[in-house]
Amino acid sequence: MSQPAQLKFLTEDQVRQIATSHDLPLYVYSKSKLDENARKLTSWQAPYGVTLRFAMKANPFPEVIAQIYSHGIGIDASSGYEAEVAMQAGVKPTDIQITSQQMPENLEELIKQGVKFNACSLHQLETYGKIAPGSSVGVRINPGKGTGEGLNNRLTTAGVAASFGIWHEYIDQVHDLAKTYDLTIVMVHTHAGTGGDPDKWLEVTTRNMEIVEKFPTATKTSIGGGFKVGRMPGEKSAQIDVISPPIAKLLEEFYERTGRKIHLEVEPGSFLVVNIGALITEVIDIKDTGSEGYNFILINAGMTEILRPSLYGAQHPLVVVPKKERPAGEVVDYAVSGHCCESGDMLTVAAGDPERLEPRSLQKAELGDYLIVEDVGAYCAGMRAGSYNSFPLTKEIMVD
Amino acid sequence: MSQPAQLKFLTEDQVRQIATSHDLPLYVYSKSKLDENARKLTSWQAPYGVTLRFAMKANPFPEVIAQIYSHGIGIDASSGYEAEVAMQAGVKPTDIQITSQQMPENLEELIKQGVKFNACSLHQLETYGKIAPGSSVGVRINPGKGTGEGLNNRLTTAGVAASFGIWHEYIDQVHDLAKTYDLTIVMVHTHAGTGGDPDKWLEVTTRNMEIVEKFPTATKTSIGGGFKVGRMPGEKSAQIDVISPPIAKLLEEFYERTGRKIHLEVEPGSFLVVNIGALITEVIDIKDTGSEGYNFILINAGMTEILRPSLYGAQHPLVVVPKKERPAGEVVDYAVSGHCCESGDMLTVAAGDPERLEPRSLQKAELGDYLIVEDVGAYCAGMRAGSYNSFPLTKEIMVD
Repeated sequence: MSQPAQLKFLTEDQVRQIATSHDLPLYVYSKSKLDENARKLTSWQAPYGVTLRFAMKANPFPEVIAQIYSHGIGIDASSGYEAEVAMQAGVKPTDIQITSQQMPENLEELIKQGVKFNACSLHQLETYGKIAPGSSVGVRINPGKGTGEGLNNRLTTAGVAASFGIWHEYIDQVHDLAKTYDLTIVMVHTHAGTGGDPDKWLEVTTRNMEIVEKFPTATKTSIGGGFKVGRMPGEKSAQIDVISPPIAKLLEEFYERTGRKIHLEVEPGSFLVVNIGALITEVIDIKDTGSEGYNFILINAGMTEILRPSLYGAQHPLVVVPKKERPAGEVVDYAVSGHCCESGDMLTVAAGDPERLEPRSLQKAELGDYLIVEDVGAYCAGMRAGSYNSFPLTKEIMVD
Repeated sequence: MSQPAQLKFLTEDQVRQIATSHDLPLYVYSKSKLDENARKLTSWQAPYGVTLRFAMKANPFPEVIAQIYSHGIGIDASSGYEAEVAMQAGVKPTDIQITSQQMPENLEELIKQGVKFNACSLHQLETYGKIAPGSSVGVRINPGKGTGEGLNNRLTTAGVAASFGIWHEYIDQVHDLAKTYDLTIVMVHTHAGTGGDPDKWLEVTTRNMEIVEKFPTATKTSIGGGFKVGRMPGEKSAQIDVISPPIAKLLEEFYERTGRKIHLEVEPGSFLVVNIGALITEVIDIKDTGSEGYNFILINAGMTEILRPSLYGAQHPLVVVPKKERPAGEVVDYAVSGHCCESGDMLTVAAGDPERLEPRSLQKAELGDYLIVEDVGAYCAGMRAGSYNSFPLTKEIMVD
């Protein structure tokens, strides 16, 4: 039996205070943690300039977007709708770049406002060419290999099994279309990396620069996002100060060899927001299935607030906070069940295997206690089965 | 290469008509298919009466609820919110029964309106007893074994790994609480079955009746839902006329042995609605990853409309409908990708293994064609990551 996890940024008293003044469940985001992450990211050094963008699909809460933007970090939008949410949150159109599987229907209007666009397919490039002939544009290329590949097909952002971007063998067709519509390919985008290993990041960036070399007019390149943030004890997080220097060196070597100074773009989602969020839920039931069975905690939230465990077998720290202060007592192995009438609505599943229950050591809970799901800042409120079982959408707040 | 699937209830012309008069994607539900399913269900025979309820979590669209209700089928609600949605759709409170992991905060009010309640834990039973002492109530019991068990933990509605209901070893405590609050246990609910095998249904109902026997005041029993509906070729559907007679015989034997005539309740979700729904999407891109790779179709929908493939590796028939009529041409193996910037947003995954791409033989598609996802009537609009990537919620309509 392992030690129960501790609260990450809230105190027990804060949890109790927030719980008495708000309906539960509730997502709580920390402005100071967000600032801390933004400062880490903005320390990124690149020899010929760097543009940082927040992959807002990770957390489209307007206050989160605005706070990140206040650090000079722009927006990577995965849809035209995201671009509009960002603008409503106060982001200038010129600080937004769309890289999307689905071309916005109002792309022409968005471009006129100054939004940047990366074409993710030959069809997108041609459509763009018709809308804005004679202009500059980026292209997303699938470089054929990524670090996510093989680990888990659902982390594959590059390679033959990924539908993202233009397959690298079709670069000639990109040039043909650019010629037809008098387009200047100013940006080459690949997103092939995931994780925190600096060697892997150097590897995918090396491959990225091979692609850049095939676009003589490109002055910028984006290596996407995917910088890992550890949630559980022992999980390591990507370190910007370790990952970025070899990439800077690579850009310098590229300049020495080709005479081209390439401006770097980076688009993290999780890195900025994973650890800024805690979901405050209430323990609504405690039950067990006998001496050969499990001890269950049921909470008033579930896949309606956090789908990642059911979807991927994702691991999030869980912390019991007593409703009224009491001395730390016994530690119990609990299976934590969501409130949906759905067998798969479980928060304590085996890593990467959502079909296997794996109880977690938690402080012994009482009815009415709070159960805090930590590290819910990324891909939780933004990617939830929010209205399943007709539950109302859970709200989000930001605290200092 | 297998034969491409065919449209199930729409014609190609209907698809084109609907597509020109509505925004896509769009869920389309068939009233006549729904009526057909309802008639099959209402043919259920039980010797001492039967109450049929629609597990509305499968599809909470008000028109669907109202149409099902018009056949004399009541409502199984998985939350207090569902009960309210049902009432707004015109269902009388007395025709609604709540069996929920999360006790509604306004349960007292709902009960006063006539809504029925099954306590799913000792805590729920005690809370109910305090609210409505001296009244009648149902209990959901986890009988310790179900047919879903072992197949897939996410289909486990009974057994030690399921958090649903009161563990069968705690029936004495149920009686104690009933005594304390002067409650009459009139209904015993188990939901241990899933699939279409009549022998399995007889087995779980036999076990169910053993539980009923331990509640001398019970006059009703519910065996829940979980009746399988085949979506793909070769998949068999549960047959009411095969499953129900052995259960009827069991109830008669129970009467002969105990002198108790037990009224049966059944609560299917999928059975009523799986095949009433088609999702009309548009082919927004066609691309490939080279000769060693895949042919991809990208559609303007995805896990925002249908999460089941990503979540479970669920299989749904897919049909290409040409935007303008043209002769059937070549058949191509396509991987069909959703529109989210998410590697796992794939509709063609291996059965039960969402991490493995498994292309599907479809009519060769052109840009602007429609791709119809069939059998989306259950657990699609109701259980979607609807606003991921900030996409707007896709609408639903019912056609004759």
